[in-house]
Amino acid sequence: MTDLARVRAAAERLQGHVRRTPLLSSPFLDEIAGRRVLVKAECLQHTGSFKFRGAWAALTALDQGIGSRGVLAYSSGNHAQGVALAARMLGLPAVVVMPADAPRLKIDNTRALGAEVVLYDRATEDRDAIGAALAEARGLTLVPPFDHPEVIAGQGSTGLEIAEQAAERGVTAADVIVCCGGGGFASGIALALEGSGLRVRTAEPAGFDDMARSLASGQVERNAALSGSICDAIVTPQPGKLTLPILQRLAGPGLVVTDDEALRAVALAFQRLKVVAEPGGAVALAAVLFRPAEIKGDTVICTLSGGNVDAEVFQRALQRQAVND
Amino acid sequence: MTDLARVRAAAERLQGHVRRTPLLSSPFLDEIAGRRVLVKAECLQHTGSFKFRGAWAALTALDQGIGSRGVLAYSSGNHAQGVALAARMLGLPAVVVMPADAPRLKIDNTRALGAEVVLYDRATEDRDAIGAALAEARGLTLVPPFDHPEVIAGQGSTGLEIAEQAAERGVTAADVIVCCGGGGFASGIALALEGSGLRVRTAEPAGFDDMARSLASGQVERNAALSGSICDAIVTPQPGKLTLPILQRLAGPGLVVTDDEALRAVALAFQRLKVVAEPGGAVALAAVLFRPAEIKGDTVICTLSGGNVDAEVFQRALQRQAVND
Repeated sequence: MTDLARVRAAAERLQGHVRRTPLLSSPFLDEIAGRRVLVKAECLQHTGSFKFRGAWAALTALDQGIGSRGVLAYSSGNHAQGVALAARMLGLPAVVVMPADAPRLKIDNTRALGAEVVLYDRATEDRDAIGAALAEARGLTLVPPFDHPEVIAGQGSTGLEIAEQAAERGVTAADVIVCCGGGGFASGIALALEGSGLRVRTAEPAGFDDMARSLASGQVERNAALSGSICDAIVTPQPGKLTLPILQRLAGPGLVVTDDEALRAVALAFQRLKVVAEPGGAVALAAVLFRPAEIKGDTVICTLSGGNVDAEVFQRALQRQAVND
Repeated sequence: MTDLARVRAAAERLQGHVRRTPLLSSPFLDEIAGRRVLVKAECLQHTGSFKFRGAWAALTALDQGIGSRGVLAYSSGNHAQGVALAARMLGLPAVVVMPADAPRLKIDNTRALGAEVVLYDRATEDRDAIGAALAEARGLTLVPPFDHPEVIAGQGSTGLEIAEQAAERGVTAADVIVCCGGGGFASGIALALEGSGLRVRTAEPAGFDDMARSLASGQVERNAALSGSICDAIVTPQPGKLTLPILQRLAGPGLVVTDDEALRAVALAFQRLKVVAEPGGAVALAAVLFRPAEIKGDTVICTLSGGNVDAEVFQRALQRQAVND
């Protein structure tokens, strides 16, 4: 089981390898939100998202003999890049299984980070079968994107930093809104903050609010669709088996924002914080800015969880904001 | 005279008020530059540029009685915003004289930061005369944008951070490329690094390379034009009286980049560092990426000095990069 002690142990292994990302603020965002807003900018983490933390924690928890045979990850997303870089830094082989129609830039980036990329055809091939066969043949260890004790612990290191950086600013009680896909980031941070005055609440895009609904109903709720949000980085079918119980125990009610609100938050992060957010990484900021009535307290903290966004989508966010001004 | 002791004193006054901005890196930028690249991201400073440092240093150096009457700054640019915020945080009145045709957003921002904005007509009115009359009537103290001992000392606090952050990464000798308008930022950093293995070199846009030419010729060289670069934040007519002698003594040869290279650096900072740079704030990174033959050493450090860029210009940079890919 993952608990605060395991989060602390992961944070110790991350020390000197992870970036301590800044807690940003802007008087202009405070004004929109109607309270003080502190933004944990994990888009400035290695590979542009918090995912490097969990990948490093999982890889450094492997027995040396097992790890040296190599690790395996799925997807073209932020997790794959986190695993690729952590493996390269640790001198371990990494294989990433990606759909052949993934954006060329993401395939190139994952390769450039030293991973072997295995492409498959989404229409005719089964990703899990390909991964299982590779793992079997080469003795690779699968590193899941969120439902894994050490991955959760690694993401939780963000929460330890948030608590320290908030305390430096005199903040010891506040809601901490966390971008949520499968819940690895949110549950890790919740464990890191257990017993403090800081309480995690998840933020998700509308239509993909499985975690908010699961927390409300007390059982696992699935999303009707598997794609169709601009917040692609945090679209998952349902909460994790490990992450949901942690959040049931520690988190407040989940928040939900529209794709349009996520895009406006991307534009405001550009204008007021000077950082690049991807839509899925901006849903927590969107909740802070556009759902203030659902949040209590003089201060709110949120994560800005990633910045791996195409230029086209980013320009759409800037144009959307111009219309809104 | 400004020296290392004055820089250290300014840094002490800034402690707890300034952001210690991160020193970022990306393996993808290292590959383009052909060496290790470390980027001091001052776009993440309060008000989106390093200018807050010099403003705070200048305002906190005033006698209490003089300061309480208020301070005066010119321009719609980064310096005005730095002065406005520093004055508000110190509870001092601030007046900013701006052209009436300045972008509405910049006027609004400066007002929102608590400054009184006095507009003038560029075609028919004389900015200096208006400022002088206001200063006389109200007992305001002018805070110049760069040619001022405490402003230089405040900007130099960036150099102390660079030295510490570089040492943490094992770097004790390297060129430090600094975006240069009047030279306040570059000369302050040069003083902070005096006697270390880190050497400042200025970066400027082509056609506005007065500092590079002045350093080469040993005398004050002026620019032929006063506007016409996309790097508007660092277009100045000639080097400062205080800044040039400091750079003559301490800096290496100046570097010059094209507007197009500055735009490409903006796009690469978006893509690889996840930060928002304005073109003038990206000229040092552009020199690092596109003029590698003019730089020596395994590692190079550069400033990313500001991120106050309009959405339109930013989109132009992203489109320019897409063409280049």
